Amino acid sequence: MIRVGIVGGTGYTGVELLRLLALHPEVKLSAITSRSEAGMRVSEMFPSLRGRVDLEFVTPDAANLAECDVVFFATPNGIAMKEAKALLDAGVKVIDLAADFRIRDVSVWEKWYGMTHACPELLAKAVYGLPEVNRQKIASASLVANPGCYPTAVQLGFLPLIEAGVVDVGHLIADAKSGVSGAGRKAEVATLFPEASDSFKAYGVPGHRHLPEIRQGLSNAAKREVGLTFVPHLTPLIRGIHATLYAKLTSDIDLQKLYEDRYRDEPFVDVMPLGSHPETRSVRGANICRIAVHRPQGGDTVVVLSVIDNLVKGAAGQAVQNMNILFGFRETQGLEIVPLMP
Amino acid sequence: MIRVGIVGGTGYTGVELLRLLALHPEVKLSAITSRSEAGMRVSEMFPSLRGRVDLEFVTPDAANLAECDVVFFATPNGIAMKEAKALLDAGVKVIDLAADFRIRDVSVWEKWYGMTHACPELLAKAVYGLPEVNRQKIASASLVANPGCYPTAVQLGFLPLIEAGVVDVGHLIADAKSGVSGAGRKAEVATLFPEASDSFKAYGVPGHRHLPEIRQGLSNAAKREVGLTFVPHLTPLIRGIHATLYAKLTSDIDLQKLYEDRYRDEPFVDVMPLGSHPETRSVRGANICRIAVHRPQGGDTVVVLSVIDNLVKGAAGQAVQNMNILFGFRETQGLEIVPLMP
Amino acid sequence: MIRVGIVGGTGYTGVELLRLLALHPEVKLSAITSRSEAGMRVSEMFPSLRGRVDLEFVTPDAANLAECDVVFFATPNGIAMKEAKALLDAGVKVIDLAADFRIRDVSVWEKWYGMTHACPELLAKAVYGLPEVNRQKIASASLVANPGCYPTAVQLGFLPLIEAGVVDVGHLIADAKSGVSGAGRKAEVATLFPEASDSFKAYGVPGHRHLPEIRQGLSNAAKREVGLTFVPHLTPLIRGIHATLYAKLTSDIDLQKLYEDRYRDEPFVDVMPLGSHPETRSVRGANICRIAVHRPQGGDTVVVLSVIDNLVKGAAGQAVQNMNILFGFRETQGLEIVPLMP
Amino acid sequence: MIRVGIVGGTGYTGVELLRLLALHPEVKLSAITSRSEAGMRVSEMFPSLRGRVDLEFVTPDAANLAECDVVFFATPNGIAMKEAKALLDAGVKVIDLAADFRIRDVSVWEKWYGMTHACPELLAKAVYGLPEVNRQKIASASLVANPGCYPTAVQLGFLPLIEAGVVDVGHLIADAKSGVSGAGRKAEVATLFPEASDSFKAYGVPGHRHLPEIRQGLSNAAKREVGLTFVPHLTPLIRGIHATLYAKLTSDIDLQKLYEDRYRDEPFVDVMPLGSHPETRSVRGANICRIAVHRPQGGDTVVVLSVIDNLVKGAAGQAVQNMNILFGFRETQGLEIVPLMP
Repeated sequence: MIRVGIVGGTGYTGVELLRLLALHPEVKLSAITSRSEAGMRVSEMFPSLRGRVDLEFVTPDAANLAECDVVFFATPNGIAMKEAKALLDAGVKVIDLAADFRIRDVSVWEKWYGMTHACPELLAKAVYGLPEVNRQKIASASLVANPGCYPTAVQLGFLPLIEAGVVDVGHLIADAKSGVSGAGRKAEVATLFPEASDSFKAYGVPGHRHLPEIRQGLSNAAKREVGLTFVPHLTPLIRGIHATLYAKLTSDIDLQKLYEDRYRDEPFVDVMPLGSHPETRSVRGANICRIAVHRPQGGDTVVVLSVIDNLVKGAAGQAVQNMNILFGFRETQGLEIVPLMP
Repeated sequence: MIRVGIVGGTGYTGVELLRLLALHPEVKLSAITSRSEAGMRVSEMFPSLRGRVDLEFVTPDAANLAECDVVFFATPNGIAMKEAKALLDAGVKVIDLAADFRIRDVSVWEKWYGMTHACPELLAKAVYGLPEVNRQKIASASLVANPGCYPTAVQLGFLPLIEAGVVDVGHLIADAKSGVSGAGRKAEVATLFPEASDSFKAYGVPGHRHLPEIRQGLSNAAKREVGLTFVPHLTPLIRGIHATLYAKLTSDIDLQKLYEDRYRDEPFVDVMPLGSHPETRSVRGANICRIAVHRPQGGDTVVVLSVIDNLVKGAAGQAVQNMNILFGFRETQGLEIVPLMP
Repeated sequence: MIRVGIVGGTGYTGVELLRLLALHPEVKLSAITSRSEAGMRVSEMFPSLRGRVDLEFVTPDAANLAECDVVFFATPNGIAMKEAKALLDAGVKVIDLAADFRIRDVSVWEKWYGMTHACPELLAKAVYGLPEVNRQKIASASLVANPGCYPTAVQLGFLPLIEAGVVDVGHLIADAKSGVSGAGRKAEVATLFPEASDSFKAYGVPGHRHLPEIRQGLSNAAKREVGLTFVPHLTPLIRGIHATLYAKLTSDIDLQKLYEDRYRDEPFVDVMPLGSHPETRSVRGANICRIAVHRPQGGDTVVVLSVIDNLVKGAAGQAVQNMNILFGFRETQGLEIVPLMP
Repeated sequence: MIRVGIVGGTGYTGVELLRLLALHPEVKLSAITSRSEAGMRVSEMFPSLRGRVDLEFVTPDAANLAECDVVFFATPNGIAMKEAKALLDAGVKVIDLAADFRIRDVSVWEKWYGMTHACPELLAKAVYGLPEVNRQKIASASLVANPGCYPTAVQLGFLPLIEAGVVDVGHLIADAKSGVSGAGRKAEVATLFPEASDSFKAYGVPGHRHLPEIRQGLSNAAKREVGLTFVPHLTPLIRGIHATLYAKLTSDIDLQKLYEDRYRDEPFVDVMPLGSHPETRSVRGANICRIAVHRPQGGDTVVVLSVIDNLVKGAAGQAVQNMNILFGFRETQGLEIVPLMP
């Protein structure tokens, strides 16, 4: 049993961490912080947790996070970079679900996130927590930068093609669609039910913060700078990301076999049979990325369909997967959930 | 480990049984039948079960159901009544999720269900599977009639008032709202997305099949025939029932205490704090009924709010709960699921 | 052509007024105010109005509202009561879509709305703008209090029964369900898409502000104080209210004929054929209240189903109907819209 | 006033035609046919039309369609090709909302639609009813092939680029998302609310029937065969198509000006300001295509966002627009509808 703390437990990634950790056999939830809600029972804010989580929100000061074995940051961008160092110095492992440690190049990060990085010296130490790429590094890390939701779906979808060197990496296209929980549990007009329901739109076409993160990951795989057009869309789902990926093939190859071989041993990536069209609901609530690969009309454009639950494989579930790797637990521990369908 | 068979696995209660049983530590799934889909992999129809359920649908003949310890009927009304006897004679326990054995009075059943009952002699033997009322009888039953979804939410909401004799049982009102999965996985125009989305309607106001079932249960509790107006509504949810119950108080009583006392030891009924308004999503995917009781403006009308997931506590989850009782497993075994929120 | 001003045009009732008035042949839109958005084009905030409304938001001062023939207040409660008097003194007619002038008894209003009324002397002058009750008074009014959304659906549903004196008015029950636009275009967590979608809940059971408004209207009709239990619910619709009404019959009467006679000449109330179940989508976008009346099982409980679009017959459409009456236009002018289905 | 007949009035395009034609000042609805529902009042099936459409469904024989001035076919594919000739011979103009006359090359049509064409000699006579391309030809046509929904959104989005010759037409990508009404009012499991709600998926990636239609239109504009990858998706909207289009720029050009110039005089195409992201709801219920054009990061990939209501500009509205052109009415007659927002 490890002692686990959560900083910032009132957002969607926070409550999702609680859902997963509440039943994790190796975890004792020690503290969950919220400045604004200190003193409120967690299950009062989230009645779904009644009978499962018997904690109150506490202030960060009262949380004694230094006594935890691991602390998750489920906070807005810019918090973890200020608080991680003290915890790391106290020997606590840190998993940040925000973006503070995802980008290696501090100037790129500062440009896209519009703030000065408070702790650039930690960037070299942080491991990007995509287990399908960095499993070994994660196992020995102390600070894990949990990937973004779009970056998880897009990278897992593109990686086999890029690693195999069979597509033109100068002109990759990622057309991605996200459910509204991806925008967070923040009071905003744009994501009100009457605004976001029964409507569909693109956003951030000129530039979205996940673009440099995806580009970094794909460029690492390609061993050169990739060219990527990334268009995110908002769709009336609570949860779910569907990434539709396009690339121009530069060699003839058995695509289905390529994907099956790449992910054969991955517990949380499911390559579907030839001709499949994965639905986001087929992963609802579960830590799975399902992928199908197509070559329409036998042409030279490959189309990859990649779906995740943005709050699970795209956030809290991947964070728990990283925790399992960090502490040497079975990687699927606490994540053996059957998706909710319908 | 018990061997479990499912008859009729292609509907929503079937796939929900599979979701729950796939992770139940005492269960080995032996067979799942479907005449129309025999030979198809279960996970091809329901990709959410990929990697979790490694069975094909088989014809009833090929299923060797007589070798199971328990068989669930997740079939339309009128099937189990024809097939249960042979299984019972072979020593197999039977849990029917349809309505065939719910009504004691065969003439009432035949009137509301529009068919002749094929096996009326089993009605006396069948136990109505509402554990909060019949736990002991269920433990020694061989044939369990799993309650309907509306009847579960409405009865659990009304029972404390009726058992305590504190309301006018001649004029009970149950205004109930159901998600669309309650209509089943049947190709019908009325429940298409463009028909059922962004709209709300009552249906069956002149009379709904769950009316006699609820009336039977409440009349048993009242020890006299109750008067009940039951109005079901269709609301754009996938899952969930919200029953809003109205009754006229005939004595002054601490309603909150009444409910807390009645359900104190029930693992799957949650009486919420005074003043609460339970949301259906607070039980999404879980075998829980959450209840709040109000007395608006201190008047003589009591208002009870009762929510369940119609596919779990209203169907498959309650069936698993009954199975646990039947076989002496811990009652919460396989049902320790945290609701999916958001 | 009359000159029309709108105070507070950034909410849902404001944009809905614009949708209706943009095509009204007797109306010239003169000004629309918003302190926060002054200078922004209306069609920039609401792209649905591109090419239809060629105005900018202006500050109230710049709007020259005193030169309008009529001013609509589509503001939060508490604004119109401060500003109406000056306009009325300038000879401008005022239609308030908020609650400031709906309740005759100022002490009741102040209790439920939690503020001191700024202009109680106008209460006697204000006409409650439910045309089906007050058409003649509206025609000669200068200040119209446009009814609330729930009050419109509930009153139109109950009125025939109460006016005819055929039910026990001491125990009326109104179980009402509203789409989320009823909560307004305000940044709040509770009405975010991930919170309000795929879920259903009651709210305000101890007391909702529309209770005294409904009680006032029904008591006027009953010529005595009625007893009413009113339970509102939030349902995942953008638009729509479904009121399910229950009363105990005190005399035997042809209910269908009662309703048809009462509303025979009403252009915006549609009594549906015997046995009908109106859907909210059947009035989507249109100024119609559709009603069906049932007597389940021939018992002594009457069940009335009443649906409106909360933003049209429950707000902006009814306001335009009132404007038409005020100015002697054909009552259906600008309101001949076919509901959007599907 | 012209006499209008509709063949096949029970689907979504049929009821949408009725919604639009019911208020069209130049139209007298003469007959609407349905073999299966003959004798039923139209407003019984579609209560939204109560008080607006006072017709019964009749059999095709009883409809006297030859006496109409124009007949719309709102039927499944394969009906109009059998019945159009007789009407045309009788001097009736025909507008087919299905696919029978959209593809010039009969062998292509037969391959994609899987049937033998019953009347290939009419293909040369039919005019493809995209007014923004073929307005003059439509004006003198007798048989109009109304475009498909995806083809309308995709062609209007791509045309300015292709006509101007500024993109690589060998590698066009159209990632399109449709609401569920696009699948029609047919009893099918895949489009039930519990299946299609809160989920997102691609479909038809290997090949969709709208691919050859789009390719034909774009190839006409390019004056050579284009290369197109078309991936349709199903999204939980009732109505709406959002096409996200990608092409590689081959010359530097002011894209915003290109689009504004191309569509300056089009009443139903709205080029939005630079940097916009059109939402499908901004055209809900209206005959409008809104387009925005982007060049992310100043790279060589142009991204076009094109939205329509699939039942209006993608079907019935465009059909009425074509009717207006055919009969010399003002092109916007009966189509001056403000989109429903929210």
